[in-house]
Amino acid sequence: MIWCGLDIATEFSEALSSRFDNISDANIASKPDVFFLCSQSTQSICLSFIDDCVGGIPESHILTIPDGDDAKNLSVCETIYTWLKDNNAQRSSLLINIGGGALCDVGGFCASTYLRGIEFWNIPTTLLAMVDASVGGKTGINLGHYKNYIGTFSTATYIFITPHWLKTLPQNEVLSGWGEVIKHGILLGGKAWTQVQQPIPNANDHQAWLGILDWNIKIKSRIVNADFEEKGQRKLLNLGHTIGHALESYCLDQEKPIPHGFAIAWGLVMESALATKSSPKVEATESLHQTIKSIVEGLYDPIHFGEADIPALMNYIRADKKNNHDKLLFSMAFAPGECDFNISESAEAVIQVLIQYVGHTN
Amino acid sequence: MIWCGLDIATEFSEALSSRFDNISDANIASKPDVFFLCSQSTQSICLSFIDDCVGGIPESHILTIPDGDDAKNLSVCETIYTWLKDNNAQRSSLLINIGGGALCDVGGFCASTYLRGIEFWNIPTTLLAMVDASVGGKTGINLGHYKNYIGTFSTATYIFITPHWLKTLPQNEVLSGWGEVIKHGILLGGKAWTQVQQPIPNANDHQAWLGILDWNIKIKSRIVNADFEEKGQRKLLNLGHTIGHALESYCLDQEKPIPHGFAIAWGLVMESALATKSSPKVEATESLHQTIKSIVEGLYDPIHFGEADIPALMNYIRADKKNNHDKLLFSMAFAPGECDFNISESAEAVIQVLIQYVGHTN
Repeated sequence: MIWCGLDIATEFSEALSSRFDNISDANIASKPDVFFLCSQSTQSICLSFIDDCVGGIPESHILTIPDGDDAKNLSVCETIYTWLKDNNAQRSSLLINIGGGALCDVGGFCASTYLRGIEFWNIPTTLLAMVDASVGGKTGINLGHYKNYIGTFSTATYIFITPHWLKTLPQNEVLSGWGEVIKHGILLGGKAWTQVQQPIPNANDHQAWLGILDWNIKIKSRIVNADFEEKGQRKLLNLGHTIGHALESYCLDQEKPIPHGFAIAWGLVMESALATKSSPKVEATESLHQTIKSIVEGLYDPIHFGEADIPALMNYIRADKKNNHDKLLFSMAFAPGECDFNISESAEAVIQVLIQYVGHTN
Repeated sequence: MIWCGLDIATEFSEALSSRFDNISDANIASKPDVFFLCSQSTQSICLSFIDDCVGGIPESHILTIPDGDDAKNLSVCETIYTWLKDNNAQRSSLLINIGGGALCDVGGFCASTYLRGIEFWNIPTTLLAMVDASVGGKTGINLGHYKNYIGTFSTATYIFITPHWLKTLPQNEVLSGWGEVIKHGILLGGKAWTQVQQPIPNANDHQAWLGILDWNIKIKSRIVNADFEEKGQRKLLNLGHTIGHALESYCLDQEKPIPHGFAIAWGLVMESALATKSSPKVEATESLHQTIKSIVEGLYDPIHFGEADIPALMNYIRADKKNNHDKLLFSMAFAPGECDFNISESAEAVIQVLIQYVGHTN
């Protein structure tokens, strides 16, 4: 169940009381079966808030892991598993993930594999996690710099989304989430597509954000529910991600990591350029590409790579999880709201687009 | 699908050709998408045999991991994941696990989490793996000495079982598998229960073994199919395992590891003693206990522990995955073929039984 609203304190307390229906109050200390995973960033702000509304979380039931992708590896998983075991977490236990996309990904993965699966809830605290990572039942960690290579399909039974946390985020974090909002706008078309061409609302404009969060959650949920295990149309959600993930992994290799959504934003630009080559409606796709380019150039710093870096980028593109044998498969938008998946492209066509963007982004 | 028979060469080749239906012969070298995981023991005998029947497995598509539980940890998982990634295993790839229970457990776990799940087949090569570990869709690794604490429910799409390998096994390996055969005999009652009171057939008596394998696979499959995720009656398969796992973990702590089935055999003896305390038909349960005890004493070395070791054993029993909060929950047989699960027992009753067996096994 996905809840999106302003009064998270009430919603969360009630959900917890109802989950542990043998206990009448919301006091956490009397619920030995709840475990809280948070990150260095979310511990002070978000966890304190949750603690205030439900009262007295025992310290041993809180684990703080590194922020961002530094947490998405097997070593942090081992820390989480051991913490759960040392504190007698059982099959009936509940893990609550409070944090950004990386935290929800690793927390969900551990919950879905600890004792072959315990229940977990997500409280996403970044825009990226609210509109994307916390919703849809994909959990995962990285294998070296290969993104989400290890994971499960496993759904959080409750997700609590509130714009309340947005004002606590640095601007880069909001921009990173906005990369996925742009993607959803392209997929949905219509009013959503119009909205992503407007300026990003102020973090305190809760009403504007409630509207944006609402359609983002809806488009993602609709696609995920139709194809949970990504056999077909769920691949649409990978729009911009084939090149985007390659850019992200490549920058990590260079020890110049960039936020996920920045990579996706530039991935959307480059993949829409690629789409013009095989589009059944070239003019509409060219216009879409130009609009995406103008949105992204207006919001995001360029990503620096040269022609000499293209072989490394191509290695990552070839390792994309969607590929089948030697075919490079892309999800593509030909116009706002008109998208398709499993579009095969030649390595040459992809290289051409990358070369084109050496100039634009360097 | 579970196949059990003698001509594994033909069955396996045909299955492989049919899986890769775009390729007309069985030659593995032309199937870039098949990966073979084997153990130090199975590499020379079983893998060579498979290689002979399907021809030319590329070396990079074979990974050899340590024998037994030494492979069931996150570090070996990382080795497996990295091998798959380095050799371009994709979502369409197939992992074939050739080995005992531990290998099938860790291979299945990695397959079910690599790229969020690729297909895997099992070729169990020990009796334990044939009658238990390879069947039923539980994958897993250990967390320290805590058995199978990490895992997934994920089913091998094909399992090839043949008594052909039994003659390659040391006697301890056959005895270890026989511990689970005894458990299945208790669960099933009737002819199966009679059979486990007879001597273990010679490894070359393929017809006798085909019969035994057949009813073992059937009882396990029937219970698993009725309750895949172990919400209820699948817990019956944990007969003997609450105390058995504790004995196994405890011996590992003492750096005197014992085979899984030895621990289960003694677990069956002690848990049937426990069952006499809460049985609705005390006489039948007492008789069952005496028969189990006599079978196990006739086949297995005693496990050495003293009264001073009981707190350590109780810690493992309290950490059993079946427990709910502070309740110690057991699966129990009250007579052959008459079993129940979620039977709550006090710590005192369990300790009494353990004390009773200090004398018997020391």
